[in-house]
Amino acid sequence: MLESAVPGVRLYHLHAVQDMRGDLCVAQLGRDLPFEVRRCFMVYHVPNAEVRGEHAHRSCHQFLIATNGSVRVRVDNGQQRDEFILDHPELGLHLPPMVWGTQYCYSHGAVLLVLASEPYENDDYIRDYDEFLNMVGGSA
Amino acid sequence: MLESAVPGVRLYHLHAVQDMRGDLCVAQLGRDLPFEVRRCFMVYHVPNAEVRGEHAHRSCHQFLIATNGSVRVRVDNGQQRDEFILDHPELGLHLPPMVWGTQYCYSHGAVLLVLASEPYENDDYIRDYDEFLNMVGGSA
Repeated sequence: MLESAVPGVRLYHLHAVQDMRGDLCVAQLGRDLPFEVRRCFMVYHVPNAEVRGEHAHRSCHQFLIATNGSVRVRVDNGQQRDEFILDHPELGLHLPPMVWGTQYCYSHGAVLLVLASEPYENDDYIRDYDEFLNMVGGSA
Repeated sequence: MLESAVPGVRLYHLHAVQDMRGDLCVAQLGRDLPFEVRRCFMVYHVPNAEVRGEHAHRSCHQFLIATNGSVRVRVDNGQQRDEFILDHPELGLHLPPMVWGTQYCYSHGAVLLVLASEPYENDDYIRDYDEFLNMVGGSA
């Protein structure tokens, strides 16, 4: 598990088992999955030039895995920034609430799985970066 | 949502949103995700000839999605059988406890995501088909 320059953001190397029948990797509550999952979504068929994400959540936790291909993830709390390349199912990135997340540079065929702690709630999203900075007391 | 010949097994067509930025599909608790997820695992790099699964769970629910490629899933409760092809992220298959599940015919590059209601517990697995049949009162 790798701590990020942004406190609370963590990159997990998931437990993996490989044998002749194929590979398997696991994220499990209390070990490398930091919350119970009440929603999951998959993002795919994303043109390489597109940037997605670009928001923060007030209370929802997210856990990101590129199940196929690779995706870059930038994280920012208004003071610190960091960047990760998710390019293997064994990498899981925990984004806690109040972290601005941006995903970009999707490879051809990339699939980003997002496990979320809460059902969809529009009011949980902070979509304006200046508003986010005001809330966290950070600077651009 | 499609009911299976095996009671309790259900195939969900997940809610999808498509636009110029790419595609997104969602499974959410209380709508098309039948339980809170406490473990998730991914199965990949499976040789086409390999058969995986081949067990039932005493109490764990599972929700299967092929996030990439395609996988065939056979289900069996000792009395009824059914078979599904998961070939798109928008298809989610709910396998409740006490259903014998078998996955096979993984396409090249296929990734099977399994969302599970419980952490790993070896005693929850029934790996012997005759024992399973005895438990459910079915016939081979």
